[in-house]
Amino acid sequence: MDTPQFKQLRQSLGFDEVSIVPGNITIDPEQTEIGLNIGGIKLQIPFIAAAMDGVTDVRFAVEMSKAGGLAVLNLEGVQVKYENPDEILAELVHAEPEIVNTLMQKIYSAPLKEYLVGKRIQEIKRAGAIVAASATPASARYLSKLAVEAGADIFVVQSTVTSAHHKSNYREELKIKDLCRSLPVPVMVGNCVSYQACLELLETGASGILVGVGPGAACTSRTVLGIGVPQITATMDCAAARENYRQKTGKYIPIITDGGFRNSGDICKAIAAGADGVMLGSIFAQAEEAPGRGYHWGMATPHPSLPRGTRVKVGTLASLRQILFGPSNRSDGTLNLVGALRTCMGLCGVRTIQELQKAEMVIAPSITVEGKHWQLMK
Amino acid sequence: MDTPQFKQLRQSLGFDEVSIVPGNITIDPEQTEIGLNIGGIKLQIPFIAAAMDGVTDVRFAVEMSKAGGLAVLNLEGVQVKYENPDEILAELVHAEPEIVNTLMQKIYSAPLKEYLVGKRIQEIKRAGAIVAASATPASARYLSKLAVEAGADIFVVQSTVTSAHHKSNYREELKIKDLCRSLPVPVMVGNCVSYQACLELLETGASGILVGVGPGAACTSRTVLGIGVPQITATMDCAAARENYRQKTGKYIPIITDGGFRNSGDICKAIAAGADGVMLGSIFAQAEEAPGRGYHWGMATPHPSLPRGTRVKVGTLASLRQILFGPSNRSDGTLNLVGALRTCMGLCGVRTIQELQKAEMVIAPSITVEGKHWQLMK
Amino acid sequence: MDTPQFKQLRQSLGFDEVSIVPGNITIDPEQTEIGLNIGGIKLQIPFIAAAMDGVTDVRFAVEMSKAGGLAVLNLEGVQVKYENPDEILAELVHAEPEIVNTLMQKIYSAPLKEYLVGKRIQEIKRAGAIVAASATPASARYLSKLAVEAGADIFVVQSTVTSAHHKSNYREELKIKDLCRSLPVPVMVGNCVSYQACLELLETGASGILVGVGPGAACTSRTVLGIGVPQITATMDCAAARENYRQKTGKYIPIITDGGFRNSGDICKAIAAGADGVMLGSIFAQAEEAPGRGYHWGMATPHPSLPRGTRVKVGTLASLRQILFGPSNRSDGTLNLVGALRTCMGLCGVRTIQELQKAEMVIAPSITVEGKHWQLMK
Amino acid sequence: MDTPQFKQLRQSLGFDEVSIVPGNITIDPEQTEIGLNIGGIKLQIPFIAAAMDGVTDVRFAVEMSKAGGLAVLNLEGVQVKYENPDEILAELVHAEPEIVNTLMQKIYSAPLKEYLVGKRIQEIKRAGAIVAASATPASARYLSKLAVEAGADIFVVQSTVTSAHHKSNYREELKIKDLCRSLPVPVMVGNCVSYQACLELLETGASGILVGVGPGAACTSRTVLGIGVPQITATMDCAAARENYRQKTGKYIPIITDGGFRNSGDICKAIAAGADGVMLGSIFAQAEEAPGRGYHWGMATPHPSLPRGTRVKVGTLASLRQILFGPSNRSDGTLNLVGALRTCMGLCGVRTIQELQKAEMVIAPSITVEGKHWQLMK
Repeated sequence: MDTPQFKQLRQSLGFDEVSIVPGNITIDPEQTEIGLNIGGIKLQIPFIAAAMDGVTDVRFAVEMSKAGGLAVLNLEGVQVKYENPDEILAELVHAEPEIVNTLMQKIYSAPLKEYLVGKRIQEIKRAGAIVAASATPASARYLSKLAVEAGADIFVVQSTVTSAHHKSNYREELKIKDLCRSLPVPVMVGNCVSYQACLELLETGASGILVGVGPGAACTSRTVLGIGVPQITATMDCAAARENYRQKTGKYIPIITDGGFRNSGDICKAIAAGADGVMLGSIFAQAEEAPGRGYHWGMATPHPSLPRGTRVKVGTLASLRQILFGPSNRSDGTLNLVGALRTCMGLCGVRTIQELQKAEMVIAPSITVEGKHWQLMK
Repeated sequence: MDTPQFKQLRQSLGFDEVSIVPGNITIDPEQTEIGLNIGGIKLQIPFIAAAMDGVTDVRFAVEMSKAGGLAVLNLEGVQVKYENPDEILAELVHAEPEIVNTLMQKIYSAPLKEYLVGKRIQEIKRAGAIVAASATPASARYLSKLAVEAGADIFVVQSTVTSAHHKSNYREELKIKDLCRSLPVPVMVGNCVSYQACLELLETGASGILVGVGPGAACTSRTVLGIGVPQITATMDCAAARENYRQKTGKYIPIITDGGFRNSGDICKAIAAGADGVMLGSIFAQAEEAPGRGYHWGMATPHPSLPRGTRVKVGTLASLRQILFGPSNRSDGTLNLVGALRTCMGLCGVRTIQELQKAEMVIAPSITVEGKHWQLMK
Repeated sequence: MDTPQFKQLRQSLGFDEVSIVPGNITIDPEQTEIGLNIGGIKLQIPFIAAAMDGVTDVRFAVEMSKAGGLAVLNLEGVQVKYENPDEILAELVHAEPEIVNTLMQKIYSAPLKEYLVGKRIQEIKRAGAIVAASATPASARYLSKLAVEAGADIFVVQSTVTSAHHKSNYREELKIKDLCRSLPVPVMVGNCVSYQACLELLETGASGILVGVGPGAACTSRTVLGIGVPQITATMDCAAARENYRQKTGKYIPIITDGGFRNSGDICKAIAAGADGVMLGSIFAQAEEAPGRGYHWGMATPHPSLPRGTRVKVGTLASLRQILFGPSNRSDGTLNLVGALRTCMGLCGVRTIQELQKAEMVIAPSITVEGKHWQLMK
Repeated sequence: MDTPQFKQLRQSLGFDEVSIVPGNITIDPEQTEIGLNIGGIKLQIPFIAAAMDGVTDVRFAVEMSKAGGLAVLNLEGVQVKYENPDEILAELVHAEPEIVNTLMQKIYSAPLKEYLVGKRIQEIKRAGAIVAASATPASARYLSKLAVEAGADIFVVQSTVTSAHHKSNYREELKIKDLCRSLPVPVMVGNCVSYQACLELLETGASGILVGVGPGAACTSRTVLGIGVPQITATMDCAAARENYRQKTGKYIPIITDGGFRNSGDICKAIAAGADGVMLGSIFAQAEEAPGRGYHWGMATPHPSLPRGTRVKVGTLASLRQILFGPSNRSDGTLNLVGALRTCMGLCGVRTIQELQKAEMVIAPSITVEGKHWQLMK
């Protein structure tokens, strides 16, 4: 029993393991405030559509902005590699499952067309929408310049794991700090999952931090790389870093939980765990406006030698507006995300996102076989 | 390891995670006492049928009262919206699954017919039964007056989460305290799940507290709103509040665990966790007398913009009497609830509900895939 | 967080949650000793066949004794209610699933034929076997007299939960202490699961204690009554009572874990948790000699008003000898129980059952969906 | 609550229960070092193919060595019992499932042909590969002599559980210490799982320790013998022994985690838990070069009286080179093991295996039914 310990492991928690405890007082959902401020740019709702090719294209970005949220255009995907991305997307969507990973590797090996970066951004801009665009650290310096010149309002540096200090012998190292200082627009950075990594990203001057690495239990980052932290723990740890940074600097930088969401309940839980907003992929891929036509895949899926993830059929459910604002005629938490969040806040008796972050949560047994059985009986 | 903690989460427990330890002495089941006292109204058995339209109508309320228990009539459902609710229920029950949620939203959007409130209550009353009727907080003042005038013996204020202090800009706020003081009959209030919320409801002068929010692991409150506390923990926390209130005031107010029950074992566990009685929905929906004809749905299911729950087929099993008193020819805990409770008490060597509340319980692994497999092999 | 606690729950463990750690030394399986001593009667192997009608009849009891173990004849089942029990068993075994519980209730409502008690016991005795016979506490005084007169070597008092002190207004109370003192043969008593209940049974002068109430996660005692303690915890707690009793009195009384076993691994785990022997039902019901012809049911299954359990098809696997001693051509732990136990002891480097009780165990994740999937792929 | 404790059980962890936390810095995968040193013999990659007949034959050993790893030839299997093992393997692979265990028992009961030991080793040697060969403790003295004479570079003593001190009345006891001292080549020994057992094996002078007993939750050692420790805990405990031994002696002896791996994520986790290398069975059985032609079985499977394990169909996936080095067109962690390990190290910001051993890990919920469901929907 008194065996020397090689290392200690903390328990971590995902969406399925936790639940929110309602409050001692309750309020009307209509009295709640759910805005999100990213470096001075104010969103009315704390929902951001992911920089994934099945989710965000020009049209979707415009609709999302009109609805009060934000969508991030991926500057390394089909939108900037192909003049007519819809053709390519149709090919991807109709491909047989056996060949889809190989086809995806081929499609994404096409080079970026520089002029398309500006073109896409301007199309969104002209429609009066807020423009957010993303790149991986390796291309961030080059693409951020193009994006900002074209009128991007927010720039996002995103990869599976982005650290403030990447060491490389092969390419010029990106200093996130320099990028944040040199760009005239707010920069969001991610993803990270730990207290220390988040704190170091906050210290670069970023205006928002994306949180989430291999969040889902079924996520292939865990299967392929062994890496991942369930989202509730990742969010709580990064929220702790945000509080530390606020105490030291007086600056409140939002934490955006990204990945693994399946329903509005998960969204409420992420915010109760400390998030200021959420980035959604598969949930928005279910919108009629989504370019993936009911299919969804991550940006690590087309990796040439080590793909992580695959094309997922999510189906098409409703318009983006109905997904966000309802009305819902389903009870699975996929429609009326805003109404669900406001109702949750009402039952917790809180008026703001920051108050919901203080709600009590419990570790609750995840869905059991028995529970599943009962549900199926329905 | 010494990462600052954003928040601490307690472990919570549901029916599947716990089990009762038998006693050091045993007694005969026939020697047990299982009555329940709600504000002076004494029930012989601690079973209350839920205020759900698939469970309680006039006939069911009469049968339940004759059997020694209680059924609560929902004053915002089909019984008071339609002169002939059976027709409406038949329509609901025969609707195709794809359209049932939408149909339910339509059916429940019909206005209440004031004269039906009195009529239904008097029909129950005339049969010599104890009458309990329920409303949501928003309509409680108005409907409680009608109900009491018509002869209701117990009034129930119930919603997903009811707090002693609801804040609203849009409607006149209901003060539960004022309602309890002004009504000449005992008032039961719920639902709540936490120590503090329960304590505040006890301090309003309520004669019974309903406990349970999003109890089942499969419950859609958790999926849609992220909210819920498993029933064993909810019951233990509210029982602690009851004890505190008793110490301060000398008054013993019963705690009624409501929701998530699947069998008599769950009922025994709820009482061993501290409950004085249980409110049952789907179990009673399986009675031949239940108006839902083998179907069951919650009162949040027809919500116009954010439905939570759906129509569930539970089937018809036996008469209410056989469900309550047996004999049983099944081994799944769905028949002879009273016999099972008394047998449990006998094996624990306890004579009263209050003694069963002190029985030892253990956290026991929930039903595993392996266990399930073995069971199916049978 | 500092909510007052209504009660504290300990974590309990079943077979699926634990595993044995092999030793720092290893020995040859042939060097192990696995005898079991019940009140002076020495068994060569620590395996006892349960007093269940699908397992033990005259022939099975004889075979089991010849193999070095023991089988217990149920003095309240078909063997003593019917002159020709094989006909009755055939009827039970061939009944359709829908009517089997009702048929069983009818068959078991037949009265006991007193002369059959003596006849069955003498049949076993004449074959040179050790005779063990069982009754419930309510009939123990009467039946023990008959059994001992007929030549029984061991008497077993057994019910779902048997306490040293049963309180009853309706029937004369059985004092286990008096029974143990008055009978000229060793008495085994059970079942119990907790430290205190076991200690009180030990103090009655019993020669063996049966441990196990609602052990399996799928067990219907938990579903119907909410009662049960997983077998590893039950065994450890009762073993602690045995140690306490030994320290106080110098007497070593064996603890027999009864119920929930599916394979030889479970048997090894029970002994490593502190058991001196095991009582097996479904595993022996798979023997060619078992009267249940591949079917199995518990003694609470035919309960007239609250049946717990049902007829289970276990199939017929091999002869009792092959189940006990192999050779095995299967890898699921259902054949060669003795070989498996000895091999386990060899890998743990222990020579006796009492040394195996001291082996290190760990809490190990139970079989996951993933594990199951992999296994099925095989 | 203050019940005396019979024994204490530690929580143990397997691959499914843990996950690696990415680092605060990141580096390029190309900058990582993943070599493994076994008693002076340096491997470029820390992957060893198991001494199983479905995995390692002459051809596979040669390919594995060329790829920078090592394969261990089993000196008690079909390669040394049959002049033409391919015929035998074909028979095994084509046998019907019902008879395969019995056939396997028959095939493996054939006697060893002494001249084949030398022949197989020389065939590998002549191809310029590093030769590793294994035997169980009972035959280790005899077979190690033959193997070393034929040119083996590494000798492996391996059984389900091997201890430094085996006690036997029936055969001459093998002293591992003497063997290590007398053989002119490095000796690897295993398997073990606990701190103390590993420490004692280290003290014999072994050049590598194999870690893993009954690792998988579905593993039949747990089902048949009740024995097993999940691999993360086993690896951590043995790594603690390695550190202790290093502190006392200055010698760094590698720990090789053996068994239960399903994908590259598991491999990364084992190393993050403290392993220096991994021994793989079923993953390499999926190689086109594997003699098992898509089938796999353990060395305890053909045990004459107590088989543990069975023939598993794993399928044929790709060439050994592609399994090791990619490119991958799958996202399930079965291809590009080296790329996955290097990428994991890059995301953890570590350059060496020893640094990865210090990476933070968390206990993360294992794959739930819900997660599985979502995955299947894909």
